[in-house]
Amino acid sequence: MKKIMNNPNNIVDEMLLGMEIAHSDLISLDRENRIIYRKKKCENKVGLISGGGSGHEPSHAGFVGEGMLSAAISGAIFTSPGPEQIFEAIKLADTGAGVFMIIKNYSGDIMNFEIAQELAQAENIEVESVVVSDDIAVEDSLYTQGRRGVAGTVLVHKIVGYWAAQGKSLIEIKKMAESLVKNIKTIGIALSGVTTPDGGRESFNLDENTIEYGVGIHGEPGYNTHDLVPSKELAKELSEKILNEFDVEQLTNVGVLVNGLGATPLLEQYVFLNDVNNILTDRGINIEFIKVGDLMTSLDMAGLSLTIISIENDEITQALKSPVNTIAW
Amino acid sequence: MKKIMNNPNNIVDEMLLGMEIAHSDLISLDRENRIIYRKKKCENKVGLISGGGSGHEPSHAGFVGEGMLSAAISGAIFTSPGPEQIFEAIKLADTGAGVFMIIKNYSGDIMNFEIAQELAQAENIEVESVVVSDDIAVEDSLYTQGRRGVAGTVLVHKIVGYWAAQGKSLIEIKKMAESLVKNIKTIGIALSGVTTPDGGRESFNLDENTIEYGVGIHGEPGYNTHDLVPSKELAKELSEKILNEFDVEQLTNVGVLVNGLGATPLLEQYVFLNDVNNILTDRGINIEFIKVGDLMTSLDMAGLSLTIISIENDEITQALKSPVNTIAW
Repeated sequence: MKKIMNNPNNIVDEMLLGMEIAHSDLISLDRENRIIYRKKKCENKVGLISGGGSGHEPSHAGFVGEGMLSAAISGAIFTSPGPEQIFEAIKLADTGAGVFMIIKNYSGDIMNFEIAQELAQAENIEVESVVVSDDIAVEDSLYTQGRRGVAGTVLVHKIVGYWAAQGKSLIEIKKMAESLVKNIKTIGIALSGVTTPDGGRESFNLDENTIEYGVGIHGEPGYNTHDLVPSKELAKELSEKILNEFDVEQLTNVGVLVNGLGATPLLEQYVFLNDVNNILTDRGINIEFIKVGDLMTSLDMAGLSLTIISIENDEITQALKSPVNTIAW
Repeated sequence: MKKIMNNPNNIVDEMLLGMEIAHSDLISLDRENRIIYRKKKCENKVGLISGGGSGHEPSHAGFVGEGMLSAAISGAIFTSPGPEQIFEAIKLADTGAGVFMIIKNYSGDIMNFEIAQELAQAENIEVESVVVSDDIAVEDSLYTQGRRGVAGTVLVHKIVGYWAAQGKSLIEIKKMAESLVKNIKTIGIALSGVTTPDGGRESFNLDENTIEYGVGIHGEPGYNTHDLVPSKELAKELSEKILNEFDVEQLTNVGVLVNGLGATPLLEQYVFLNDVNNILTDRGINIEFIKVGDLMTSLDMAGLSLTIISIENDEITQALKSPVNTIAW
């Protein structure tokens, strides 16, 4: 394991300092609580927060900014932030209209965000939340009951960010977000395991010819280890797994996210997107929005995930396409 | 070698199709000539083109758009595009005020861009160019006489793009660009070699503990293989090598680019940036602009490069910071 770092115990703090230095026009850093928060606040609009373990950069701090998150909390590598940190983020995000939390479905995150919500409510800050569990690969996993929250979470940041900027109320956002997350499905594959900075834990090993279908973003193994196949076949496998989750008769308009897991070049991500596009358009599905790049990574894992969102009305397309001012969207 | 692809012979074309599909609002693709070009043309402003071998994504097609390049030409992996392709890009970029070519210093590129320039001049299109040779690591290399052109090239795209958008003439741009490129210096390190899609050529091999100082972006070896050291020491080695290239007494304001080479997580890039920032500010150098991310990659190589630009006037800072509309800036 080779990493560009100093001390694994300080790696998250040093990364956050780097982000603060690089993007001081856009965001500020609460060093003690490891919170990146928006410099320009919007008075009387719902504040949006998200966060979780580090190691998924640019998620989530990269999506703080006008039109997306108000604040993002970073835990240690692959470890939920604590309730007190999250509570501080809620206070930073609140401008009088309440705070909405976007939580990926991991047991630690669920618990800590819920405690933070209680702490905030005790101080009369209104808080609501949605849990994202877009990963269709497996039920119940290393750190999760039910399905994991993965790259589709970034689409939730984008769409809910649009609603918040439009001035929707906390209750409206809660209702719309609950409906939204059901329309977002993701599945990933890995070409390599992941090595953590504290000593290089790899939770699965792949040899020179195999890939793992259905991996999580913390090195959780998937549902099948298989010889590498051409991109077209990968695209078919992942697309069909996702399409099976939808009522395909109803699926006319979609958005597509091809998300690099960290060590896979953009070159390969675009080749894969081209194959996904061919499969979906051959089936008469209209792709209204496409995003390609490393948005929700798993440290140095090679691989990618495919996310499909069923777009039920034009406002969702508009929300996905509207310009924002963040580090990484 | 595992790659998400279909046929190595089609990988560049399939990638370009993917880019066209994903960014059809912004760019168009000339499939035959592998040119990505801007949809909205600016009449009577200097057209800017760049390009080179593929395998450096998002360079260069990712920097086509308002405020940056007019068109980018893609060769095969690590291979210069041909003169006819470049000539077609010149014609696409020309809106009446001539075309300026930004060329990385590789023998094949220099030759082919020069032939294209002659072809264009024979059709009465005015063409000028600048050669970027920002890599201070080594003189003369596998594919280069003199110094190589690497990540600093993207800063040239950005600044010259600003000048073109401001309406500067071809002759003014030529003169300013010649002066600009002298102020941009880069050096890179690799934690792994690079594998090409056609069979996995790795031009150097590093074991579990070593890194290579001074690598190029095509797997060219550098000047030293060494045990991995902490990020702080890496930052010191690279910063000092670069500072020695400048008249340090005159160096008061700089811009910094930390560029990931493909497989190195953003997490590590920000840790490294934090260390570079400490070194430069300790020396009383004022950092006016910072950029972090994978801008000029080398397929799946792990590692990064540091670029420092000496900023001699406020217009350069403004040029670096001005908003653009591209895929990847």
